[in-house]
Amino acid sequence: MVTPDVVVDLTVLERNIATMARSTRERGLSLRPHAKTHKMPQIARRQIAAGAVGLTVATIGEAEVFAEHGATDLFIAYPLWVDQQAATRLLALAERARLTVGADSVDGARQLARALGASASRIAVRVELDSGHHRSGACATEAVDIARAATEAGLAVTGLFTFPGHSYGPDAASSAVADEQETLRRAADSLREAGYADLELSGGSTPSASLATGATLTELRPGVYVFGDAQQWELGHCAPEDIALTVHSTVVSRRPGTAGQADRLVLDAGSKVLGSDRAAWATGYGRLPDHPEARVVALSEHHATVEWSGARMPPLGTRLRVVPNHVCLTVNLVDEVQVVRDGVVEDRWPVAARGRNS
Amino acid sequence: MVTPDVVVDLTVLERNIATMARSTRERGLSLRPHAKTHKMPQIARRQIAAGAVGLTVATIGEAEVFAEHGATDLFIAYPLWVDQQAATRLLALAERARLTVGADSVDGARQLARALGASASRIAVRVELDSGHHRSGACATEAVDIARAATEAGLAVTGLFTFPGHSYGPDAASSAVADEQETLRRAADSLREAGYADLELSGGSTPSASLATGATLTELRPGVYVFGDAQQWELGHCAPEDIALTVHSTVVSRRPGTAGQADRLVLDAGSKVLGSDRAAWATGYGRLPDHPEARVVALSEHHATVEWSGARMPPLGTRLRVVPNHVCLTVNLVDEVQVVRDGVVEDRWPVAARGRNS
Repeated sequence: MVTPDVVVDLTVLERNIATMARSTRERGLSLRPHAKTHKMPQIARRQIAAGAVGLTVATIGEAEVFAEHGATDLFIAYPLWVDQQAATRLLALAERARLTVGADSVDGARQLARALGASASRIAVRVELDSGHHRSGACATEAVDIARAATEAGLAVTGLFTFPGHSYGPDAASSAVADEQETLRRAADSLREAGYADLELSGGSTPSASLATGATLTELRPGVYVFGDAQQWELGHCAPEDIALTVHSTVVSRRPGTAGQADRLVLDAGSKVLGSDRAAWATGYGRLPDHPEARVVALSEHHATVEWSGARMPPLGTRLRVVPNHVCLTVNLVDEVQVVRDGVVEDRWPVAARGRNS
Repeated sequence: MVTPDVVVDLTVLERNIATMARSTRERGLSLRPHAKTHKMPQIARRQIAAGAVGLTVATIGEAEVFAEHGATDLFIAYPLWVDQQAATRLLALAERARLTVGADSVDGARQLARALGASASRIAVRVELDSGHHRSGACATEAVDIARAATEAGLAVTGLFTFPGHSYGPDAASSAVADEQETLRRAADSLREAGYADLELSGGSTPSASLATGATLTELRPGVYVFGDAQQWELGHCAPEDIALTVHSTVVSRRPGTAGQADRLVLDAGSKVLGSDRAAWATGYGRLPDHPEARVVALSEHHATVEWSGARMPPLGTRLRVVPNHVCLTVNLVDEVQVVRDGVVEDRWPVAARGRNS
């Protein structure tokens, strides 16, 4: 086996898909998984078959790939700035799928309508809200102005959405869910007063997904849950045995510790396959599921430096599995993944939407 | 123009290639640029035409791509663990190019020779040394044992190499160069005592490349110098006008500052095009060359959050250029780059060795 190689365990993947589908259904919530995590039609099809109402994507390019592979309901959860070229692509997409895009400003909504021209009503819009992550998204109090501008410009306003990204932190999920619900509720109330009805209220991230209820929200958009990753593991949102994607690597260098220093080894999985996201609270640049006491203390493009405590350091040539910190980056770095079930290779799946940043 | 898009300025690129070629030549050093930075045969050809003796690569896969495109002298600067499948690929490469690989252990050298079998002598080996970066690489005192094991196993030992990666820090380059020279000198002395002659002594990184001399070293392997990036800019190793690669992006969201908070805007270039490397000393997740006072304070997959101080915040839809922190990651995230000269688009180049991690 050539390393590094990205390996997906189909049994775990399908279990994760089923668990989230059941959990959202039991709470009366629609599930619209974020497909940027996996970028693979084979996984999207499984999510839809398990009951997802459609897919969330981040870019027009991702939407195009999933539409080509049969997706019929796509939400680009991003405040697109739409020029003529982008408008042409959106209208082509709307031929194949029910299409919704995000807007977080009056100017953005008007620009979208202007670029779409007479076809503006064919694209639905959800207003993006900032619920505390402070990235994109309008304040709850601005939502009604954006919705009105969109409606006046000829767009169909069908809902509100937010990404509670501040759920990514130790013990942060429950307060982020409270923020998410409160922000959506306030903005939804103001839109209802202005005459909007049947609003889709969409939230959710993998850390917050298990806590949200249908009291305010109608839909969740978690992405990472299909695979899990070291961030979710370290935040307590999945167990190591629930992680469906690992990077298989080889020990290429080792240095026994001397004078109180830990043993160190180098794996051939670096930032060009693991990605280099590392939150302040993370214990390293990824985790070894079969050696949870080990720490990835440094990462360069083709080297992961591992501090090895406890048991005897493995010899050169040993194969070790690594869980990336942030799995969305790993998938986007490879052209295909190896698919195994019960340890047997079943297939290789191309990462069809890899690199579709625009 | 669709954003984000990676744009290479050919005038600046060619000037960077010429400057490094002249600078190493004047110091009596060979130049073997690290092609992992650019992964593009169009750039490799320019480096060779300017006098580079060959290319450095990180993986067998990269070597294969450059050999297919005409490279005739390739050094895989990595302590490969070579199984039968890798040996077959190395021997196929050796049909087309002079091929050298790294080894940093007796076991690794013996494994390489075992896998190559009767053809071991067709692959040259350089022993990797740790000069203070503490990643892979043997101690200077171990070099002679590794060289002897390689020789006894039938491999041709032609030199030593090290990567002074600890040159990546404020005011760190000159002491890293001293470490590099001292480590190579000590190991070379021990090999010469053991009867090895005509050793290639290879060092270098972009931060250290301008300081190394031919007193000890024979060769340098900088990579990033062709493009430059925000790390080199912030460390003082290049000026903003020497940066040949930028990511063109669009302002998609903005939030005027209130009550002492800075204005913030969001660009559509995130970690899936910029990469998320951020050294402790970096001022952000990339820099805006046309707005050096701005700071990229947060990065997610498709959002760069910029704190905008000073002049008036640009409107939605404005195109802004971003310099990534670590350019090697950016190139590896896209299938092709746009090539411009004097502001005019000349070509698009495929990133031929993108994703070749193994």
